[in-house]
Order: sequence, then C-alpha cells, then structure tokens
Amino acid sequence: MSDPAQIRALVFDVFGTVVDWRGSVIRELAALGRAMRIEADWPAFADAWRAGYQPAMQRVREGALGWTGLDRLHRMILDDVLARFGIDLAEDERNHLNLAWHRLDPWPDAVEGLTRLKRRFVIGTLSNGGVGLLVAMAKRAGLPWDVVFSAELVRRYKPDPETYLMVPSLLGVAPAEVMMVAAHTGDLEAARRQGLRTGYVSRPLEHGKPAKVETVAQGAFDVVAGDFGELAGMMGA
Amino acid sequence: MSDPAQIRALVFDVFGTVVDWRGSVIRELAALGRAMRIEADWPAFADAWRAGYQPAMQRVREGALGWTGLDRLHRMILDDVLARFGIDLAEDERNHLNLAWHRLDPWPDAVEGLTRLKRRFVIGTLSNGGVGLLVAMAKRAGLPWDVVFSAELVRRYKPDPETYLMVPSLLGVAPAEVMMVAAHTGDLEAARRQGLRTGYVSRPLEHGKPAKVETVAQGAFDVVAGDFGELAGMMGA
Repeated sequence: MSDPAQIRALVFDVFGTVVDWRGSVIRELAALGRAMRIEADWPAFADAWRAGYQPAMQRVREGALGWTGLDRLHRMILDDVLARFGIDLAEDERNHLNLAWHRLDPWPDAVEGLTRLKRRFVIGTLSNGGVGLLVAMAKRAGLPWDVVFSAELVRRYKPDPETYLMVPSLLGVAPAEVMMVAAHTGDLEAARRQGLRTGYVSRPLEHGKPAKVETVAQGAFDVVAGDFGELAGMMGA
Repeated sequence: MSDPAQIRALVFDVFGTVVDWRGSVIRELAALGRAMRIEADWPAFADAWRAGYQPAMQRVREGALGWTGLDRLHRMILDDVLARFGIDLAEDERNHLNLAWHRLDPWPDAVEGLTRLKRRFVIGTLSNGGVGLLVAMAKRAGLPWDVVFSAELVRRYKPDPETYLMVPSLLGVAPAEVMMVAAHTGDLEAARRQGLRTGYVSRPLEHGKPAKVETVAQGAFDVVAGDFGELAGMMGA
C-alpha cells in the first residue's frame, strides 16, 4: 500500500470501472427495440458490440488503421453487429444508438466515492473514450472530474505507454504521484510499468451474472478495494 | 446576438477574464516581501512580469524558441524581472513565487456565473496556461470546469488558429456551436476567424485603477456582458 500523502492525482479507467457499460447499452438497445418493434437478444448484442472493441483498437495500435477515435470504431463495430443480427437501421438511428456509449450510467458508488476523493486529490479520467464522449457522459451522470484525459489527446490507445505518461507530464508531477484506478489488471500492470501507482477496484457485475470475477489479492496492487467508497477510505479521503 | 440554443459549449480565457491575475500576483509578492523583509513597488513588479508574457509567447509562436510551457516562460521572465528589481531569491523561493500563477483568485462573479452556465452548457478553459496550472487553479478557486483545454495540448499559443480549433474538434461539435468568452477583443477576433461564437465580458479592473477599459459596443460580438452573471442571463442559464 502506497502512502496516500504521496499521491497527487487519481485517474480512472471509465468503461467498466466507473460506469456500467453493459447494463447501460442493454437498456438503450431494449428501448430502441421497443420503439421499433424489434426483438433480439440484446445482452448478446451488447456483448458482441463490446467484443469488437479490443480488436478494433488493436488495428490502430498496430498501424493497420490510422488514428481513429472511439466513436468511429464503435460505429464500425455496430454496423457489423447489426448486419450479423439481421437488423436494419437508418443512418440517424445508427448515430443515436452509437452515442449510447456517451450515456452510460455510473455504478451506484461511483459519484459519491469520486466526490470524496476530489476533496483530497485531483481526479480525472484516463480512458480510451474520446474527449467529447467523456465530457458528455460526465455531465449526464454527474461525474465530478477535475480534468479529462483521453487516449485521443495523444492518439494512442491504452495500454500504449504514451497514454499513461501523458498524465504526469501534463499535470507536472512525477509518475509515482499519480494512481491509475481500474477494474482490469492489464490496465493497471501497463500503468505500473510506466511508474504510476495502481488501485484495483473489483466490478463483479461488469460482464453480467454469473460474474466472471478476476481474483485479485491484497498486495497485488498498491490499493485493492471493493468499490469507490472503500477506495476513498483507504486513500484517507 | 446568437441563439443560445445553438451553443453547446462555452470556453473561457482565464487570465484576466476568469481570474484577477494582477491583484493575486501583487498579493503573493507582498506576502513574500513581508516574510523576507524586502520592499519594492509590487504592483510595478507584477506589471513587469506580465509585460514579458506576450513577447515570450511570441518567440514560441515564431519558432525562435521551441515549444515551452507557460510555467517555464513565467520563470524565465521572473528571473529577468528579479534582476531588474535587484532582488535575489533562492531557487525554491523562485519556484514557489513562480507558482503564484497557479493561485490566482477568481473575480467575485466568476464561480457563481460559471455554476449557472454549467447547468446548460459544457464549460471549459481555453487558456495559454498549462493543464497543471489550470487544474491547480480550478481546485483552489472552485472553478467548476467540465473540461480543461490548454494551448499545451496542441503546443500552439493563442491566437494561433489550432488552439481555437481544438475545442470543436475534441468535443465533436461544429465551431459555431462553441462560444469563446474573453475580456480581450483580440482573443475573440481570432476565435471568430475560426468560426467560433464570441462573448465579451468587460473586466475594467484587470490592469488596476485607473482602468484602461476597452470600449466594446453591443453587437461587436455575439454577446457583450458586464460580468459572468449577466452573461449567464443573456445565455438563458
């Protein structure tokens, strides 16, 4: 466990860590289905949409695709998933549905925990989502960020090192004064390789029930917490 | 006057428009002088420090100096002004004093006006100050930004076009959906050339008393207001 007094800023993974992307996207899909009288396995649709996320970013990371923002990647995947599910939507319906990723709901403990942490630390996003997405989401959900860091600002997706290193560079602090918070061990391990501190928060419902829960031992990261309230307590906020 | 319903985001010049740089820097200088038993004309010192600001940025704009963040420019100017005033400070005292620009006080109407505007619009900085400076200032002063845009993100100082164009690009909106708010006509004219809407707010005390007030007619910009409360009212917030 690192000393909270040495931490100046906490930056958060967003999809899955701060917001419930799966429940929110299913909600949007089901609402669209009701409005348009379309029946489908919406949880499976949401999972298929998300399953395209890492492969699409990987194409950008490897240079097979030039820099492409997440809204555009989400739309490319959506068009593919719609075709696979045999659903035809008009252009404006596709655009509206694609922006479901701007309208994700926070986990129940997120806003209160962030509000506590904000009193003591600079709090920000560090997400592969674009700036516009993160700002729109924060206003709708009441996420009280001090600053919005996005892969878009350096045109490199996590876990590329440049994305993590942007935070201490722009804040003018040392990497060890920044804690990356995520529900995903790979994100935290990549942050640690760049010298950042790490905070793991478990989100057992990210992939629905029954949960595919990563088992993370106390000591695996600088902080291991069950939710943002516990994280705030452990950080003295 | 533009229709507020067409505006999605308001971005604000910071030094002079949101915060009283001159009064705040004089306060810091006077406190240092008392602590170190140094007497000097602190208002003249503050004005000399600020007078180096545009020429220093101009060297960066013209390429005579590679990209250099504002903290570093402020420090270069500070060292020069200290020498001219015959004041010798140790390195840590210089560093602390240089960060006076992170500790500027808002004009009395700023926080309340921004809080009102935030309910209806995305509000952000668009400043030549660095990200770290803007975040530290906002936390100390309670400025409720949704997003922090800084010249540092594109490594181009206002009034270079790239700085203004960053805002609609990163928010994913049209330039005409963004309003630049400033107390300086040159900043607004440069924003307008890139297609942004413009809001002028008069800050007659920016340069102390007696005021050197720019006379700006209603109609010279999309909105002309006397303070942030009036601006919020004119924008329907």
